[in-house]
Amino acid sequence: MDERGLHRLIGTIIAPERLEDDCAIIPCGDLLMVASTDMLHETTDFPAGMTDWQVGWMAVAVTLSDVASMGAAPGQVLLAVGLDRPERLAGIMVGARDCCAAAGAELVGGDLDAHRELTLVSTGLGTVAPEHLVRRRGARPGDVIAVTGPLGEAQAALVGYDRHRKELLEPQPRTKEGEILGRAGVSAMMDISDGLALSLYDLLAVNDCGFSVDTGRLPLPAGVPEDEARELALYGGGDFELLFSAPPDVLPVPGVEAHVIGEVIPERVVLADGEPLERRGYLHEWTG
Amino acid sequence: MDERGLHRLIGTIIAPERLEDDCAIIPCGDLLMVASTDMLHETTDFPAGMTDWQVGWMAVAVTLSDVASMGAAPGQVLLAVGLDRPERLAGIMVGARDCCAAAGAELVGGDLDAHRELTLVSTGLGTVAPEHLVRRRGARPGDVIAVTGPLGEAQAALVGYDRHRKELLEPQPRTKEGEILGRAGVSAMMDISDGLALSLYDLLAVNDCGFSVDTGRLPLPAGVPEDEARELALYGGGDFELLFSAPPDVLPVPGVEAHVIGEVIPERVVLADGEPLERRGYLHEWTG
Repeated sequence: MDERGLHRLIGTIIAPERLEDDCAIIPCGDLLMVASTDMLHETTDFPAGMTDWQVGWMAVAVTLSDVASMGAAPGQVLLAVGLDRPERLAGIMVGARDCCAAAGAELVGGDLDAHRELTLVSTGLGTVAPEHLVRRRGARPGDVIAVTGPLGEAQAALVGYDRHRKELLEPQPRTKEGEILGRAGVSAMMDISDGLALSLYDLLAVNDCGFSVDTGRLPLPAGVPEDEARELALYGGGDFELLFSAPPDVLPVPGVEAHVIGEVIPERVVLADGEPLERRGYLHEWTG
Repeated sequence: MDERGLHRLIGTIIAPERLEDDCAIIPCGDLLMVASTDMLHETTDFPAGMTDWQVGWMAVAVTLSDVASMGAAPGQVLLAVGLDRPERLAGIMVGARDCCAAAGAELVGGDLDAHRELTLVSTGLGTVAPEHLVRRRGARPGDVIAVTGPLGEAQAALVGYDRHRKELLEPQPRTKEGEILGRAGVSAMMDISDGLALSLYDLLAVNDCGFSVDTGRLPLPAGVPEDEARELALYGGGDFELLFSAPPDVLPVPGVEAHVIGEVIPERVVLADGEPLERRGYLHEWTG
């Protein structure tokens, strides 16, 4: 059973509409609070050679990326650390703090535990005015589809293109962009940590329309042969760019690098260059 | 280095006043939001024979206990699950949902990951009016010290008193009591998951006064010889009762079972029956 299969099981136990978005949505006075939690651990998520500082940075970046995808301003982060060796703690905490500071968030608490495998769980909170909240649901035929930056860079590093190691190991959550896009009136948004293809299918699952991308318009990782680069951009995991739909007249949005890659269509399919796009990418798998 | 030593290190990296309480405190309109995150994993936290339902229940209970200790009403819980075997997920999620429901909270989201050791991280959110917030700091000489129920039951089960297995495996977070005590005006509060002795030393660290308990007044686990029961009550971990101080005229508080066990004193010491209390209990230890 794969991760999305287990998610469907969870949808039978807790309110399924709670599972649609990158964050939970919580009332908070006149605002909405969004909250996301993400687990990362050594064997699955931290490539060899990563420094403790980078581990801490990444743990915070992935959850702030979820906050950004809702159009929210990042606020607070809690970090639970399952620590394998005590000497790693200082580097991890400084990395986490620095990522918070870069996004204008504050590291406000956490938990500390001994664990035989380094395991980090960050929880990110942010706030947004109700009228600026963006969800995965909301795309409309005629909207354009766009992304905030090059795709496939993290995967390119994993397959040996060392010039992209920094993008792999120090992902930049698009917090500024997410907030600006929420205010600009984009219609649907998510981050694409599991690859563009799976993300488009995630949007398909909660919208009553489809998504058609033109692979010739994908912003590709530099220094990689074009065919391989396109493959990485479609199916590679580990990028933390935002994927969004918007009425065409919303773009360009000042302050946001946005690459239009396709359009929202009435048919409930995901197409690449007019053909059905393969549904694959990064998924946790259980063999049990 | 032990857990509290590493906490001091963290206090050099993030604002140390953020580490004083069981929860972080976050502005939320006219209210305050409190947020806590707790990691539990198989080898350290789940005794043999525990069901998946109990694992899910406990993961939520420990974080709702933190929310309660601030005087806050429980609101939302996020649960990150590092899953060793897919067939465990349903039981865990139902246990988590049931614990939320029992406390009037809602399970609103989470994360799912494959992990070789079952690892759960729950994040609990709650809200409280600023005037009802209770922190660890705030005890005053002349206040009484009290707890919400018997101490040492979980540890009694761990050393073989099977009649207390339910208290060990299905801890009841004192959410109702925490909220009532906050409104009643108690002066300081925390939960005592690491044992009474360590908790009193935690209070000592952030207050300008001391704590004197009378071991003859401790509510003890039933069915255990008295000397052993007193030892378990002072030093045993795994209980999730609330420990609080309050001006004497605040007690009794309708709706809360409270056992007065001592008083707050001007001297910055922790005493049991007039003698310094040993500073020991449940601590995670790193051997690195």
